[in-house]
Amino acid sequence: MPETITETPSVQSLAAECEAAARELSTLATEKKNRVLRQMADALEAEEEAILAANGEDVSAAREEGISDALIDRLVLNPERIEKMANALRDVASFSDPVGEMSGTTKRPSGIEVGRMRIPLGVIGMIYEARPNVTADAAGLCFKAGNAVLLRGGSNAFNSNQVIAAALHEALEAEGVNPAAVTLIPTTDRDAVQEMLTLNQHIDLIIPRGGEGLIRFVDETSRIPVIKHYKGVCHLYVDEDADLEIAEDLLLDGKVSRPSVCNALETLLVHEDVAEDFLPRAKALLDEADVELRGDARTRDVLPGITEATGDDYAAEYLDLTLAVRVVDSDDQAMDHITEYGSNHTEVIVTDTLPTARRFVRSVDASVVLVNASSRFSDGGELGLGAEIGISTTKLHAYGPMGLDALTTEKFVVYGEGETRHPVEK
Amino acid sequence: MPETITETPSVQSLAAECEAAARELSTLATEKKNRVLRQMADALEAEEEAILAANGEDVSAAREEGISDALIDRLVLNPERIEKMANALRDVASFSDPVGEMSGTTKRPSGIEVGRMRIPLGVIGMIYEARPNVTADAAGLCFKAGNAVLLRGGSNAFNSNQVIAAALHEALEAEGVNPAAVTLIPTTDRDAVQEMLTLNQHIDLIIPRGGEGLIRFVDETSRIPVIKHYKGVCHLYVDEDADLEIAEDLLLDGKVSRPSVCNALETLLVHEDVAEDFLPRAKALLDEADVELRGDARTRDVLPGITEATGDDYAAEYLDLTLAVRVVDSDDQAMDHITEYGSNHTEVIVTDTLPTARRFVRSVDASVVLVNASSRFSDGGELGLGAEIGISTTKLHAYGPMGLDALTTEKFVVYGEGETRHPVEK
Repeated sequence: MPETITETPSVQSLAAECEAAARELSTLATEKKNRVLRQMADALEAEEEAILAANGEDVSAAREEGISDALIDRLVLNPERIEKMANALRDVASFSDPVGEMSGTTKRPSGIEVGRMRIPLGVIGMIYEARPNVTADAAGLCFKAGNAVLLRGGSNAFNSNQVIAAALHEALEAEGVNPAAVTLIPTTDRDAVQEMLTLNQHIDLIIPRGGEGLIRFVDETSRIPVIKHYKGVCHLYVDEDADLEIAEDLLLDGKVSRPSVCNALETLLVHEDVAEDFLPRAKALLDEADVELRGDARTRDVLPGITEATGDDYAAEYLDLTLAVRVVDSDDQAMDHITEYGSNHTEVIVTDTLPTARRFVRSVDASVVLVNASSRFSDGGELGLGAEIGISTTKLHAYGPMGLDALTTEKFVVYGEGETRHPVEK
Repeated sequence: MPETITETPSVQSLAAECEAAARELSTLATEKKNRVLRQMADALEAEEEAILAANGEDVSAAREEGISDALIDRLVLNPERIEKMANALRDVASFSDPVGEMSGTTKRPSGIEVGRMRIPLGVIGMIYEARPNVTADAAGLCFKAGNAVLLRGGSNAFNSNQVIAAALHEALEAEGVNPAAVTLIPTTDRDAVQEMLTLNQHIDLIIPRGGEGLIRFVDETSRIPVIKHYKGVCHLYVDEDADLEIAEDLLLDGKVSRPSVCNALETLLVHEDVAEDFLPRAKALLDEADVELRGDARTRDVLPGITEATGDDYAAEYLDLTLAVRVVDSDDQAMDHITEYGSNHTEVIVTDTLPTARRFVRSVDASVVLVNASSRFSDGGELGLGAEIGISTTKLHAYGPMGLDALTTEKFVVYGEGETRHPVEK
């Protein structure tokens, strides 16, 4: 168990310092921000030895605690992973700076010129679990978008996060930037999270990353807006006019290429007119990849011997080599199924019929809707956002993968020549 | 006191019906929505007599309760105000429909085509006080943006709101649209608000409109995201290089044209280099308009005899013919003052120096920042949004006056030709 530091500054005072830093960051020149990001990358590489030592302590402690191998895998750092972290920061330096962008400038009948200027949100609170790379990734994205970040990493990664944050501070200080711009809460005390979630006078947005339990706790406790997603129950719908070669490709890529991620497929819906043709082909390919199928009665008519699917199967995010299957009698039934069981994350249709594609796109309520393309493209990098700070499956502020833009907002900027709304009598 | 209906459907069941209606609305054709809006306008005019009768009951009851004249004025309807409500709905019909707009479509290196499609938020909960026109205004804007709305009006306007909502329902039903798209909670029971604020499984956004007390209660209680503004403490900063004629105009328009609104000026900041010239001119004009000045020591050096300003004065939203004044020794001091006392609503600088203007625009954290134009332009209509459902002084989702766009969000839409993220082996 990592040692808990006993004399820590209060979370409130850390958040207040973060807020002061955010004010300084909001007008920092792009070139300076990029210099800091590249120095952060260099500092991570320079501190490789210290990071690996601290991470070694964390991993040993986690092993002693009997933490699962999957969690240990997320926790472990090695030189390759540190280089990846550093290069991710260099990538962020290369992204264009959203802050200060003006859009939609128009002249109004009154004579005033109105536009919108993109500005940072202020202070972002990140609450996350085992992965220490989130410390650097989140800091880099928040910083580039002109935000300060208050980080609360998992207790298992406590030592790793401390050393990573110290390296990032070196870079900030070397460039004369307030180091509170990246603040790691230096305690594993659970009350710190609770306190953090009440500080709506200092923190503008909370982004939790981790298991459903953590996210529910944060969402139910927070007095600050939370952007989150619980899970990805993603469907592939093979329409009656689908190109079945494409359907095979998207099924394999979606289910097999990386089953543990949230944009992997969990359910296959097949139109009854192609079920007899497609299901045996799908099963042959999935058998080879060791995917277990669970189907409804109509699926089992075509594929006798597979397990029966229950409602729980259709609601499940397996994150594993298991796939629920259902035969539907119409596009509407497919869309109704998605409304009932979907998670507003990512939904795919395979069809060659344009009106069907357009109706699916318009009607399906998911943050990413794909036609004839793999669910695995539902990712900030693949969609062109550069990088991803998280995914939102609720609609306020952001919906879907969130890049730098989602860490900003817009204010109105007006230029005039003395215009008044009403005539002034002097 | 209006009679409380005893057998009301639960707020939860109303919200669930609203959610079902929202699904239908999300894909309604623009022309149909516009037809409904114009029919709503006609229905309000056709039901003028019934609306006036119900409003008469509300006004009598409010008078008996000893409600203030200002509140009675907000509550009262007359044929002119009903026509204004109807015409506001016709205006909304004429706005372009944001739903379905695609933006930023690009082709990615993987071959997929990625764009964003504007979609409704879902169910909007409006909680408001005396003004019965909000019932029609909010319903119209939410409906045009494809959202269902759950309305909770003030108890003083109970009868008026019921009759207005009934007229809107006539129009929805005449066009075969689910009338739950506009749902008025038919009770004055305060617990209904409390219950409404827990229904995050059905309601996507809460917009409270009313006094600071109501808004704080909603914000502190809600489990649903809230977009709100508490108050507008708006500053006019007269820089050393200001055109003092313009400064006079903006001061008069901002302070005097309608002091009771949130974009009226509350504080005048004057650079020391122009204080001796400008302050006497300002005072002469403000005296004529019966504006009381409260100044700091340096202001009182120039204008002896005016009241002394305290910190409370600088924090005050007078909404009245009172103005706090301070002489500052630099742009930085002016901006620091705004950081300390401003409300993130609307801030104005008068200057002829471009770098000063640009620095003010970039640095001042307010939803609307104006250069050489009146604070009174901080309004959805004046800024070109068409109409305004509310104003946000927090940055998540919307910042500043909110029009139709702020009642929508964007999802990602991807078209491909069978692309997969990883090569598929078959």
